[in-house]
Amino acid sequence: MSEYIEPIERLADMFRRLEGVGKKSAFRMAFSVLELSEEDARDFADAIISAKTDIKLCTCCQNITVGDMCEICSSSKRDRSVICVVEDSRAVAAVEKSGVYGGLYHVLHGAISPMHGIGPDKLKIKELLSRLSDGEVREVIVATNPTVEGEATAMYISKLITPLGVEVTRIANGVPVGGDLEYADEVTLRRAIEGRRAI
Amino acid sequence: MSEYIEPIERLADMFRRLEGVGKKSAFRMAFSVLELSEEDARDFADAIISAKTDIKLCTCCQNITVGDMCEICSSSKRDRSVICVVEDSRAVAAVEKSGVYGGLYHVLHGAISPMHGIGPDKLKIKELLSRLSDGEVREVIVATNPTVEGEATAMYISKLITPLGVEVTRIANGVPVGGDLEYADEVTLRRAIEGRRAI
Repeated sequence: MSEYIEPIERLADMFRRLEGVGKKSAFRMAFSVLELSEEDARDFADAIISAKTDIKLCTCCQNITVGDMCEICSSSKRDRSVICVVEDSRAVAAVEKSGVYGGLYHVLHGAISPMHGIGPDKLKIKELLSRLSDGEVREVIVATNPTVEGEATAMYISKLITPLGVEVTRIANGVPVGGDLEYADEVTLRRAIEGRRAI
Repeated sequence: MSEYIEPIERLADMFRRLEGVGKKSAFRMAFSVLELSEEDARDFADAIISAKTDIKLCTCCQNITVGDMCEICSSSKRDRSVICVVEDSRAVAAVEKSGVYGGLYHVLHGAISPMHGIGPDKLKIKELLSRLSDGEVREVIVATNPTVEGEATAMYISKLITPLGVEVTRIANGVPVGGDLEYADEVTLRRAIEGRRAI
């Protein structure tokens, strides 16, 4: 039996399809929509439609963009000899925010995960390889997430790219800055010690 | 500076206007919308518009409804001599789910909160009083939330209604069933002891 009237149930159902939204939050948000002005509700609906229709994938790096090529790929200021490979657009934003990186990106749109039926063919790996064919790129930094899936993807990519004569590197594991050693897990600590550097 | 392209920022902005949605969740949901099919995105947009346009307030109890009068108010099976006063539609759903109540409801759409500029005139109190004029109602159960605002609202309503010769009651405070006394706060425990009953 449905708890609420149909338009609320229907709207909550839509919210539940979004990542990380449970039943309670879905209903809370559906009721929140009722508090919006008519105009804001229309703007919200428009924003959903336009996000779906206006956003494309950059023909080069596969990051989301509104034109054909994203701002980073189109920029003349970026170092075109390095590509940082990430799982999604949010990772691009995170690395950009750090301000430490001036090269290009490649967005895989996921990580290899046999458990979820995601094989390498579902990722933008082919597109990455084709970017390496002209010899301009000398290093690929694999910045997939430090998870089982991210590590497997990094290994897979490394095996494909190394034979092409392009250097493949992986971002470092270690204790996060500002963190407390007491709360670091064993694997992270082991990696931090293995990756120690002279000071 | 915006971290993402405009359609994502715009969509995340809309998500942030919903109750309890922070920046991270707003972006997570905005990116999730990109994963929906075109059709689902259109359905989502439609659901927002229809929630705003199809949902009205019941002319009697002020609960949300799609017709003029809600199902509960229109039902011939409900006890029309009792009205349970709640803050919002979600509270109606919660009481209905308990299955313990067979009377009518009245939804105030908030609680008195001078801090947030919500006076009694912003709530559906006038509409409640007009329901008591024909003498059919003999009890009003005030089931506003057990918060400062909810208690103040309960007191305010009680002072208005008692002179009309209608009995006003308040739902009990006490330790929640399945809870642990160790974790109950002092006020709740005091109320639980004050409200003790013979077994």
